[in-house]
Amino acid sequence: MELEPGSAILIYEASENDSNMFYATGFLAPDKFIYLKTRDREAIFLSDLEIDRARSQAKVREVLPLKRFIAKSKERGVESPKIADVLQEIFEEFEVRELIVPSNFGVKYADLVRERGYKVSFKDEPFFEERRHKTPQEVEFIRNAIKAAQTALDRAIDMISGSRIQGDLLVYNGEPLTSERVKREISVTLIGMDYLAKHTIVACGAQSAEPHNRGSGPLRPHQPIVIDLFPKDLNTGYHADMTRTVVRGEASEEVKRMFDAVLLAQKRAIDMIKPGVDGKDVHNAVVETFKEMGFETGEVEGKMQGFFHGTGHGIGLDVHEWPRISSSSEILEEGDVVTVEPGLYYPQIGGVRIEDDVLVTENGREVLSEYPKVLELK
Amino acid sequence: MELEPGSAILIYEASENDSNMFYATGFLAPDKFIYLKTRDREAIFLSDLEIDRARSQAKVREVLPLKRFIAKSKERGVESPKIADVLQEIFEEFEVRELIVPSNFGVKYADLVRERGYKVSFKDEPFFEERRHKTPQEVEFIRNAIKAAQTALDRAIDMISGSRIQGDLLVYNGEPLTSERVKREISVTLIGMDYLAKHTIVACGAQSAEPHNRGSGPLRPHQPIVIDLFPKDLNTGYHADMTRTVVRGEASEEVKRMFDAVLLAQKRAIDMIKPGVDGKDVHNAVVETFKEMGFETGEVEGKMQGFFHGTGHGIGLDVHEWPRISSSSEILEEGDVVTVEPGLYYPQIGGVRIEDDVLVTENGREVLSEYPKVLELK
Repeated sequence: MELEPGSAILIYEASENDSNMFYATGFLAPDKFIYLKTRDREAIFLSDLEIDRARSQAKVREVLPLKRFIAKSKERGVESPKIADVLQEIFEEFEVRELIVPSNFGVKYADLVRERGYKVSFKDEPFFEERRHKTPQEVEFIRNAIKAAQTALDRAIDMISGSRIQGDLLVYNGEPLTSERVKREISVTLIGMDYLAKHTIVACGAQSAEPHNRGSGPLRPHQPIVIDLFPKDLNTGYHADMTRTVVRGEASEEVKRMFDAVLLAQKRAIDMIKPGVDGKDVHNAVVETFKEMGFETGEVEGKMQGFFHGTGHGIGLDVHEWPRISSSSEILEEGDVVTVEPGLYYPQIGGVRIEDDVLVTENGREVLSEYPKVLELK
Repeated sequence: MELEPGSAILIYEASENDSNMFYATGFLAPDKFIYLKTRDREAIFLSDLEIDRARSQAKVREVLPLKRFIAKSKERGVESPKIADVLQEIFEEFEVRELIVPSNFGVKYADLVRERGYKVSFKDEPFFEERRHKTPQEVEFIRNAIKAAQTALDRAIDMISGSRIQGDLLVYNGEPLTSERVKREISVTLIGMDYLAKHTIVACGAQSAEPHNRGSGPLRPHQPIVIDLFPKDLNTGYHADMTRTVVRGEASEEVKRMFDAVLLAQKRAIDMIKPGVDGKDVHNAVVETFKEMGFETGEVEGKMQGFFHGTGHGIGLDVHEWPRISSSSEILEEGDVVTVEPGLYYPQIGGVRIEDDVLVTENGREVLSEYPKVLELK
């Protein structure tokens, strides 16, 4: 972002909950703090409790004590300075009159700062365009997250393949194997490696036909089970995002055909990825592949079926970030790390989705994830 | 909150990350959605992907399809309606001109809605004053979280008491016992019960003298180890918050005296708790107890020592909420659930903190947590 003299980027968030703040500062903190960047200076402002840690971890040039600006505000006659007072002192020192803030910047501080005569305007996401281009270090963090995801996926698939088919149940260690048990195993495996997996999907049968259904209850034999997990590295903040679909027992012919179509669509999409390619074209290749293979998309009895989500999205500090690979035009660039995750969903049959993570390289792509794509676990 | 005709409460957040949204709606969702409350109506607006789940789980009277308002906006001539357009259609239907939003409401939507001629003003926290008063159901959720915390605390203390003293190390299962290992055990235990523990503290020796230090590296014999955990129930959203301090081996006389003082201060504070009591008086009783027992508070060589944090805070959907028990005046009310967590910290000695969770009842208090307070693990 080009900054004029007198204008600055301002963020006031807890970096742990806000990827822009973490990206800007490299400092992971559970409480809100102030980040300010002008044309010449870049600073964060911390309380004594966090300032030592910030000085050793943050990548911004200046880590300044908040109390210095609290003291200034008191000198000005403010009895117990609040954040807006402190911001005013900071703006004075940094000679700032105009603030550019992210769209989620709280209206309270926007209003209080405006009341003091400053101009505040928001910039839409992506706030930092450069966030999409991953550095080698960031790619390494994503690779680590993928490894963790694959370890957890292994455990999940071991449970399913190691289960016994008993009527319409899968039985594992003497108990019916449920979506909940498999998700718990995934969470426990991941947290033991310092990764957090929220909203993991282990959805079987009709549930797997709803891409947002996280799954619940018994897993069934001979039906597709979609496993989608997107762990976050609690130390680095980076994500992986992977999906596999398996059947314990025998898949129906329809599910096998769906699986083959999804595999082919994914392969074609991945093969197209390189700098300069429009994500829309990649998405359309998936759409066309499904059509060609005889899979229709549309609303049936008020419910969407076929392929009705995007082909992929960037991953990084957020599990969904730029660029998107969808029906909207977006040119892929070197350094993007995107998912490629075509899927087919039919309420009467179930769902099939396969998802890998792909780095856009100088001349093409590198598939970062490597986990077998096998439908039937016999 | 009293609402005039034409004015409404508006929240636009993901309830999973925003306790006010979850409190208002009872519907846990990872993506942002709209909540609107006027004098006569209360509604949330959901996409087709979430509307069925919302209808069965949300506690608001009206769960309306977002697409109805998207369609209205299109009828008005907007080609691809965005959130601000949809909000405008909703405000029209609900006859709203003025919006009251929480302080963290994003400046983007505040500005876009204002541009359309609506008045937007923020209300400071606590946004919903009634959130502090826990219903029996909410107390039950907190009790469950406390049970989970105590199970995890058990595992942590078992590791420490089951470790062997070897020089200045504790050795557990053949490996040096570290803060990281104990924290991992706590996290794994909790996630297995669907609880998430972030920022758990297992801090030993000099680290324990910094209340915000989460701890790292080997745990040492004969030194205080502060264990502070605050798991969140991933299903209900409610928290527990508990702290114990232990020593593996023999505590020094100084640490024993600190422990006794903290215990006494906590007992006195808890005994004072009832509706109508000022939290400031409870806090002052802790301060006075420490003084009386000869423990001084103040800055020494630029570092605070003694007792220099609040005595407690409300817990619920957030781990820190209203009321606070601190040097500021705040009257306790029936239904508050607060922590009582006095502590003493001296860099040369270490820290001692003991924390329990207390419900303010009609005539007094009920201590919800019950876990032994034993300093030495021999």
